[in-house]
Amino acid sequence: MQLSTRITGLTGGGSDGWDVFLKARRMIAEGTPVTELTIGEHDIRTAAPILRDMHASAMDGHTGYAAVPGTDSLRRTVAARVEERTGVPTTLDNVLITPGGQAALFAAHMAACDPGDTALYIDPYYATYPGTLRGVGAVPQAILTRAEDAFQPRADALKAHAGEARSLLINSPNNPTGVVYSDGTLDMIATICRENDLWLISDEVYETQVWEGRHLSPRALPGMADRTFVVGSMSKSHAMTGSRCGWIVGPEEAIADLITLATHTTYGVPGFIQDAAGFALGQGWDFEAEIAEPFKRRRALATRVLAGQNTVGLVPSQGAMYLMLDIRGTGMTGEAFAYDLLDTHHIAVMPGESFGSSAAGHIRVAMTIEDSAFETALQTLCNHAEMRAAA
Amino acid sequence: MQLSTRITGLTGGGSDGWDVFLKARRMIAEGTPVTELTIGEHDIRTAAPILRDMHASAMDGHTGYAAVPGTDSLRRTVAARVEERTGVPTTLDNVLITPGGQAALFAAHMAACDPGDTALYIDPYYATYPGTLRGVGAVPQAILTRAEDAFQPRADALKAHAGEARSLLINSPNNPTGVVYSDGTLDMIATICRENDLWLISDEVYETQVWEGRHLSPRALPGMADRTFVVGSMSKSHAMTGSRCGWIVGPEEAIADLITLATHTTYGVPGFIQDAAGFALGQGWDFEAEIAEPFKRRRALATRVLAGQNTVGLVPSQGAMYLMLDIRGTGMTGEAFAYDLLDTHHIAVMPGESFGSSAAGHIRVAMTIEDSAFETALQTLCNHAEMRAAA
Repeated sequence: MQLSTRITGLTGGGSDGWDVFLKARRMIAEGTPVTELTIGEHDIRTAAPILRDMHASAMDGHTGYAAVPGTDSLRRTVAARVEERTGVPTTLDNVLITPGGQAALFAAHMAACDPGDTALYIDPYYATYPGTLRGVGAVPQAILTRAEDAFQPRADALKAHAGEARSLLINSPNNPTGVVYSDGTLDMIATICRENDLWLISDEVYETQVWEGRHLSPRALPGMADRTFVVGSMSKSHAMTGSRCGWIVGPEEAIADLITLATHTTYGVPGFIQDAAGFALGQGWDFEAEIAEPFKRRRALATRVLAGQNTVGLVPSQGAMYLMLDIRGTGMTGEAFAYDLLDTHHIAVMPGESFGSSAAGHIRVAMTIEDSAFETALQTLCNHAEMRAAA
Repeated sequence: MQLSTRITGLTGGGSDGWDVFLKARRMIAEGTPVTELTIGEHDIRTAAPILRDMHASAMDGHTGYAAVPGTDSLRRTVAARVEERTGVPTTLDNVLITPGGQAALFAAHMAACDPGDTALYIDPYYATYPGTLRGVGAVPQAILTRAEDAFQPRADALKAHAGEARSLLINSPNNPTGVVYSDGTLDMIATICRENDLWLISDEVYETQVWEGRHLSPRALPGMADRTFVVGSMSKSHAMTGSRCGWIVGPEEAIADLITLATHTTYGVPGFIQDAAGFALGQGWDFEAEIAEPFKRRRALATRVLAGQNTVGLVPSQGAMYLMLDIRGTGMTGEAFAYDLLDTHHIAVMPGESFGSSAAGHIRVAMTIEDSAFETALQTLCNHAEMRAAA
């Protein structure tokens, strides 16, 4: 029985470099100890007070249909947070609560693009991006970046495709590179969006994980509040990945239409989860800094380890829970090196090629294991790269 | 800033009869007591043992990303339940867990239809159906039914559009009519699907609420397992509307593609909610009968009240939590009667016209308030109809 070409063509076909990840999973399932540096998720669980608040909300009877746009309370909390951080006037009418950041990415593109429209995204990219654009029927167009620019996009690369496009998807702090876009990069992006009448979809789920520079939300730039959808989430900032609670912040009229869409795609988010999210956001910046702290600490560890050698290069690591390492000095592809490291030392990392052609010859290391194991693994990785480079 | 025509055109425009519902909501907000017979949701909350199981799962650390297809455990539980109830061999590979039944309806149509494909649905229909089809880019085509056929679809009406279509969406037990499709109706539907190579999307979320006859899942009919997506949910069967946990059961290859789609649209369902759903399903049929019991009881009450008069007709009420009442004897439209009843007696019901043209001259009454208040409201409704008929 034939399925829609949309769904059968979602991944675009071809190997996507995830085989090494799956091989690591198989090894673990078969009992081989593997040091996992592939996973974009904290090595802690959601804090007990948040879970207790969730339970209290549920026991208190908040188990029926919640309002599809989200509870007024959580929408107001998110709006106030965004206004405080960005200075952009924001009310609950600018906020739709979604079942996670991925649902927000999908919905924002549903609102921006009709089938056949060109949707831009920056390469290297988070794994779901091209499929998300295909899922809404858009034609994904990668904007390549270069390691020598620290993967900040360039105006000429964007201008080459902006004229034909409806939307541009960016992500800063960035997964997989750990790069934070500079004010200059974001100004350039905003200018190109205005000049070409593009929607900007700004995935800011790592906004609380900035180690160098600052996070600037492009919605705050001149003329951008009317053409920007900001995607946010509780996942990374509050270690609530499994709660599936995120949001879109955007223009009021667009949010009204997105609420109608949500009525037809997800029908809201559990009320007790929204209450827990509101409680978690009420814990303030200190709590969020505490959640981010392990990655900051491990990034300092990594900087020290990498300073002791010359083979592996570190892409400027300014934010998020990842390091992008340049292993071109070994003469190997990212994929070959990742397989080699997995086979030889049982250390699993993601090949840069999994995130697009711009990150070829790189590997992504997630800083999501305990400090000393992380340091040891990274040292082993560097030693291994040196040995391969010398061979 | 221009939004996609898909999202701005989602509701198809025009008045959809929901104004009376919104008016009732406004009256309540302004402090007027209104007897609400509009809501498709239990007047009980999710049972405490289910919520305690959810909390135990969360405190036990099940707060990280759950597997996108759903946990193996819940997928197996759903598969076993479906196999037990239908006799169709079903494994976890036939099951995708979704964040609620609405997400399942959307995803199933994403899999069945490409943009521009015709997607059939039966009128009267659950309010989100046409928008869901438009949301995936399909062209919705209503199949009208007739009150005198108790809203069971007819072969000639289906055959008139089946040749041009890719899918057919049905819902039995039915919201809004309370009708359960007969074996004959379902055989006819299956034959037409096979002959016209249609996907059948069978929304069975009310399967545990059957008062007369039996629920037959059309996936069990010859040759249908390969072309049927069954949509299920914890919402109605276990009073877990707010937990947003549902599923699609379908052919293994289609489920594999739907998992890829879920990776790009929702990224899974909270693990602690899935654990709670598994716990709830483990309570067995007696628990489900207990959840359904109030509607069965109120339906018996309604039958008695309606037997005492001749103005209001009752569409054969075989399942689900609704009654469809024929008020054509008053000479009024469903919408006019609903407004009149709200203004005169502060009783809110849904006009049949809200659910499509087939239910014109009818009103839908949700049996979702406490028995004696329900009986009183229904008696008042009948008296009011008699008075209007005599005027």
